[in-house]
Amino acid sequence: MINFIENGSITTTPGFKAAGIFAGIKRKRKDLALIYSPRPCNVAGTFTINKVKAAPLLLSQEVIKQNGKVKAILVNSGNANACTGEEGYNDVVLSQKYCAKLLNINPNEVLVSSTGVIGQRMPMETLLSGIDKIVTEVTEDGGINAAEAIMTTDKIQKNFAVTTKINNSIITIGAICKGSGMIMPNMATMLAFITTDVKIENELLKKLLVKAVNNTFNKISVDGETSTNDMVVIMANGLSNIEIKENDYSIGAFYDALFLLCTEMAKTIAKDGEGATKLITVNITGADTQKDADLAGKSIANSSLVKTAIYGNDANWGRIMSSLGMSGAEVKPEKVSVYFDNLPILLPGYKVVLDEEKAFKCLNKNEVLINVNLNGGNYSSTWFTCDFTENYIKINAEYRS
Amino acid sequence: MINFIENGSITTTPGFKAAGIFAGIKRKRKDLALIYSPRPCNVAGTFTINKVKAAPLLLSQEVIKQNGKVKAILVNSGNANACTGEEGYNDVVLSQKYCAKLLNINPNEVLVSSTGVIGQRMPMETLLSGIDKIVTEVTEDGGINAAEAIMTTDKIQKNFAVTTKINNSIITIGAICKGSGMIMPNMATMLAFITTDVKIENELLKKLLVKAVNNTFNKISVDGETSTNDMVVIMANGLSNIEIKENDYSIGAFYDALFLLCTEMAKTIAKDGEGATKLITVNITGADTQKDADLAGKSIANSSLVKTAIYGNDANWGRIMSSLGMSGAEVKPEKVSVYFDNLPILLPGYKVVLDEEKAFKCLNKNEVLINVNLNGGNYSSTWFTCDFTENYIKINAEYRS
Repeated sequence: MINFIENGSITTTPGFKAAGIFAGIKRKRKDLALIYSPRPCNVAGTFTINKVKAAPLLLSQEVIKQNGKVKAILVNSGNANACTGEEGYNDVVLSQKYCAKLLNINPNEVLVSSTGVIGQRMPMETLLSGIDKIVTEVTEDGGINAAEAIMTTDKIQKNFAVTTKINNSIITIGAICKGSGMIMPNMATMLAFITTDVKIENELLKKLLVKAVNNTFNKISVDGETSTNDMVVIMANGLSNIEIKENDYSIGAFYDALFLLCTEMAKTIAKDGEGATKLITVNITGADTQKDADLAGKSIANSSLVKTAIYGNDANWGRIMSSLGMSGAEVKPEKVSVYFDNLPILLPGYKVVLDEEKAFKCLNKNEVLINVNLNGGNYSSTWFTCDFTENYIKINAEYRS
Repeated sequence: MINFIENGSITTTPGFKAAGIFAGIKRKRKDLALIYSPRPCNVAGTFTINKVKAAPLLLSQEVIKQNGKVKAILVNSGNANACTGEEGYNDVVLSQKYCAKLLNINPNEVLVSSTGVIGQRMPMETLLSGIDKIVTEVTEDGGINAAEAIMTTDKIQKNFAVTTKINNSIITIGAICKGSGMIMPNMATMLAFITTDVKIENELLKKLLVKAVNNTFNKISVDGETSTNDMVVIMANGLSNIEIKENDYSIGAFYDALFLLCTEMAKTIAKDGEGATKLITVNITGADTQKDADLAGKSIANSSLVKTAIYGNDANWGRIMSSLGMSGAEVKPEKVSVYFDNLPILLPGYKVVLDEEKAFKCLNKNEVLINVNLNGGNYSSTWFTCDFTENYIKINAEYRS
């Protein structure tokens, strides 16, 4: 039994503190977050595959590789510290050291993460003053503020926590994340920080995180195209004394909770797509292979034309079929059926059973479900996206200012 | 010396007739075109790689494969005759036969092409009445009307012709095309019909057409993702008696003219992107391989974030770099330079030399040029796209109605 904790966050997990403050990197809103665990935590991360990697990301990757234990994550919004060369890297090393010194811990126990404008030097004086302040403000209920501080164009603040029972003891997984602009998330930074109190080796933690990320965050609109700064990091402080082991009941229970938490984050990010008015779930079933299911889902979830049609409450299933046809998936178009929720639109043999009025009702909602059955094999894939509106353009034509 | 003929079209080429009429498939505008050559023409075509192929496309592919000579192309807008199954295929066979009968030619000398809404049966009575009418209206200056009749969401009518001298004789290549929605052309139908009076074997004609298409139409925004109905067809009637042969001066001269004509069509299609206000040319140089150059150009030309920034006259070069980083191309980010026209923005070593005021002037124009030098090898690639505006959303949220 997995429970969502109302207004949960990274600090719902016992043993973690956090804070979120206004440091002045952004004009008006909170822009600096700190996550802190007095106990050393095992850690795993997944990072962007973009060849242009931001300085803090390079540093954090190195820390995890070298050290394997961390106590803090410093995150700023407003400046990505990407495309800033050696000077940018020196800046992030300085902020890491400064933060470690004030927390009285080792520099290589501190991860750093950034999101914001690319190609501008970090305002270091502002940042260091912010660090002075934030280290004094970390508290056991500061996760909510931290969630607020990492937002950029996000409209929905994203903090979650779940608990579940393993061997009759309760374990907690908490998280904050940011991300929007998921129409084409190729360059929209997605950050997620997860805390848990289970005991788990780094290697296994990484394995479970990668699996969860692949099935959730990487199925928002586009897979494998990421920004300069994307990262998902999980810290495990072991405080619950519940150990997660291979070939054990515990691993399934923990993964299920982690997967559910990540699914909720992914759905919220998709729903919060820049300018979006609707969450769209694309469900592919009946594919001959996993690859076909993934390709089909990705293509439909990423189609501007499908997304504008859903925005306009237009049951334009032809766009879904065309998107499917160019997905690269092996499909037999004449076998395909398309449903909105449980309402059949197209049945095999190109049998159109569209009832415009009923279809309009399925589409004129905050959450739209597109079910596409390839009527072949047993593989399936679920993708999250949002509709595509004029406001996406407005936001992105004006973003840098 | 290649000359563009003012207001040229398919009927600028000697020996070709055409017409464009209102048949009633669309509500108000011209919707039926016919291209006709009394002389049998050699023919070559390139067709969509979408697995969902429209009925007329399947038929036309078959005609070219089986027959190799054609005299007519019948094109309608307003209905794609795609996802219509066997009945849709029977419809197109019927219209082909009907048209051939009235022209007093063989059915397999007639190609058929359609563009419009997917998944609706063709209104056959309307279409056949239209064919009755159009066969009586083909004239030697009807190319302009034909160009108008194949438009869908196009705002700019697209007809062109060039002449060039080969062995002291003038040869002509004329064309009409349609296409827009090139933000994500994965589902925006692109049709082009080209006529020429050279003598050329089908095999060579195909080879040159494929090469020209790959370097022009396939470099509008996205390569290789095409709609259910996309086709480019070239007919050569041989009337000039100038023969184009392998390993001969003639082949270069003819290809250059064909390439220039196709470039002009591709640029006009990009410029006419749904809702677009600007033509954007992305020029990649200094790549180590052709593949790297193409991947880099494709990624930047297809980035929603780059395109919204250009719309907002925002010199957001970070988005260009990020798009480059996730392109799959082998790039060394620290070696890259970025220019708008000839204005340097970013120089190697992440040296930002952006002058906001000058950059604004470069961007605040109808035609924007982004030059990205990878400063590696000698490969280059040129891509055409457009800016991304609120009107794209409006058009596509309402298109079906």
